Amino acid sequence: MQLQQLFSPSVQHTLDVIGIFVFAISGALLAVRKNFDVFGIAVLAEVTALGGGMIRDLVIGAVPPAAFTDLGYFLTPLLAALVVFFLHPHVERIQSAVLVFDAAGLGLFCVSGTTKAYSYGLGLTASATLGLATAVGGGVLRDVLANEVPSLLRWDRDLYAVPAIVGATMVVLCIRYGTLTPFTSALAVVTAFVLRLLAMRFHWRAPRAWNRRSTVTED
Amino acid sequence: MQLQQLFSPSVQHTLDVIGIFVFAISGALLAVRKNFDVFGIAVLAEVTALGGGMIRDLVIGAVPPAAFTDLGYFLTPLLAALVVFFLHPHVERIQSAVLVFDAAGLGLFCVSGTTKAYSYGLGLTASATLGLATAVGGGVLRDVLANEVPSLLRWDRDLYAVPAIVGATMVVLCIRYGTLTPFTSALAVVTAFVLRLLAMRFHWRAPRAWNRRSTVTED
Amino acid sequence: MQLQQLFSPSVQHTLDVIGIFVFAISGALLAVRKNFDVFGIAVLAEVTALGGGMIRDLVIGAVPPAAFTDLGYFLTPLLAALVVFFLHPHVERIQSAVLVFDAAGLGLFCVSGTTKAYSYGLGLTASATLGLATAVGGGVLRDVLANEVPSLLRWDRDLYAVPAIVGATMVVLCIRYGTLTPFTSALAVVTAFVLRLLAMRFHWRAPRAWNRRSTVTED
Repeated sequence: MQLQQLFSPSVQHTLDVIGIFVFAISGALLAVRKNFDVFGIAVLAEVTALGGGMIRDLVIGAVPPAAFTDLGYFLTPLLAALVVFFLHPHVERIQSAVLVFDAAGLGLFCVSGTTKAYSYGLGLTASATLGLATAVGGGVLRDVLANEVPSLLRWDRDLYAVPAIVGATMVVLCIRYGTLTPFTSALAVVTAFVLRLLAMRFHWRAPRAWNRRSTVTED
Repeated sequence: MQLQQLFSPSVQHTLDVIGIFVFAISGALLAVRKNFDVFGIAVLAEVTALGGGMIRDLVIGAVPPAAFTDLGYFLTPLLAALVVFFLHPHVERIQSAVLVFDAAGLGLFCVSGTTKAYSYGLGLTASATLGLATAVGGGVLRDVLANEVPSLLRWDRDLYAVPAIVGATMVVLCIRYGTLTPFTSALAVVTAFVLRLLAMRFHWRAPRAWNRRSTVTED
Repeated sequence: MQLQQLFSPSVQHTLDVIGIFVFAISGALLAVRKNFDVFGIAVLAEVTALGGGMIRDLVIGAVPPAAFTDLGYFLTPLLAALVVFFLHPHVERIQSAVLVFDAAGLGLFCVSGTTKAYSYGLGLTASATLGLATAVGGGVLRDVLANEVPSLLRWDRDLYAVPAIVGATMVVLCIRYGTLTPFTSALAVVTAFVLRLLAMRFHWRAPRAWNRRSTVTED
């Protein structure tokens, strides 16, 4: 089963590059806010955009990772870094548009990450986990390098992992029941995308531990 | 030499799952203290419990790592996260019991990590190093993700690495002299476990650099 | 093409060990400043010295990484940690000499990292990127473990990445045009080394984003 070719190769590649670009923008914007220089901006753009896929590829043994074999994947974050370097007040101004694209990247990567992991022979649960890691791993590395608590883990941020978990779960359920087609894949992408948009719109948040003492640490 | 089967497979698996569970508890408790939401608690539980073994498996080329091939390994930290999520004041109250189990996990993982690395063809020193990494790597990743100085590196914490180093060294010495048996392996586990308990009981600490200036940074 | 043997094996090994030693010194010094204990000093020395090469080896699939197959590579950082542990006021006093050696390590590692990646079949751009990662990766891991913003990314530090990028680029250009010899390799090492010395001498810095607001975050 040629799982990776859910869409035609050129369509898939275009979608990947779009996802990489918007993730890179989010990394470059954080780098500017942290006052990094132009190389810091480029490094954070690359790591944010490609880090999740690299973690997945190292885990499934797909070395060298796609980030190092596809020149387009490597150059796209540099382009995003340049855009932010020269135009960042304008990029900040369209921050909400950036977040919409980021949501699209989240949807695309949780689905493509899950299918790639499965095509390398991993089980369904492990594939969904790696789909999640593909979608959120770059953002976690971004925050760790910027010396901040990962946005993913903070309770005061709108849901980010849950849409990716839902999208990845839809993919493995489709695989399990033999109904993974370009259409159902696209449906999983759109579901994750829309869930993330709704989470931002209505500020959905996940609960914190029950009965914790009211003291709040450092946030 | 079938080094990995020091104990019968089912016994070894049970011991691994216990170690994973207690490590996951320590990750989940830190997540609650950092005010993370339920997904942050689950992520930190998974990373703490499985991170050390993942580092070892990536280094020795055992991909996909065991964390992604054994469903029990993956689900155990989620169970620990749920326990902490609902019951964390009670878990905090039995913190000292948790630390005893954590010491047991330390002993188990330094021994099983060393033997797994050796069975993949690494040298004795490298195997002991990876045994140490298996035992302490998850805790370091936990602290990095929580944006804290790794507890492992701080001088004001009771000895943690030394018991694991002693246990791993006992294993490679036994391998070197052909005396690695279930009995000597268990002895190494117990030695590391007891050393850690003694370090906690008597607040054993490692020295800091000689002649450092008295200024103390940020601790 | 036996790219890795730019110099005779024993010369290459000696150069590697020197680079590892000086990188380890920088890790150990930071550990002392952070008030870590002797094990924290050893861990930070190992990670700083060997981390960049480990990242490269995991990416190119050279497992187990050289850090785990060459005992000299492993023991050298421990020696550096001992030197700093007992003599660190003296090492601090010759900090500028340490920085000169660190610049030499930067030059050596960007060149040897690039050639090793290319010899494993990676493309020219990917090889240069991994040469950069070899040279600067250990320092980034050092700062992440010490819970600091990576020195590499900060605008208020003298250029560090650029000399390594220049050295790595010279190597891939030589490969591209078939002129990679021990002489041109040495020239790339020396160029990166001298550029880094000049950057320190004249406090060369990279620009930050254009038109950023004057608010400065947390640095």
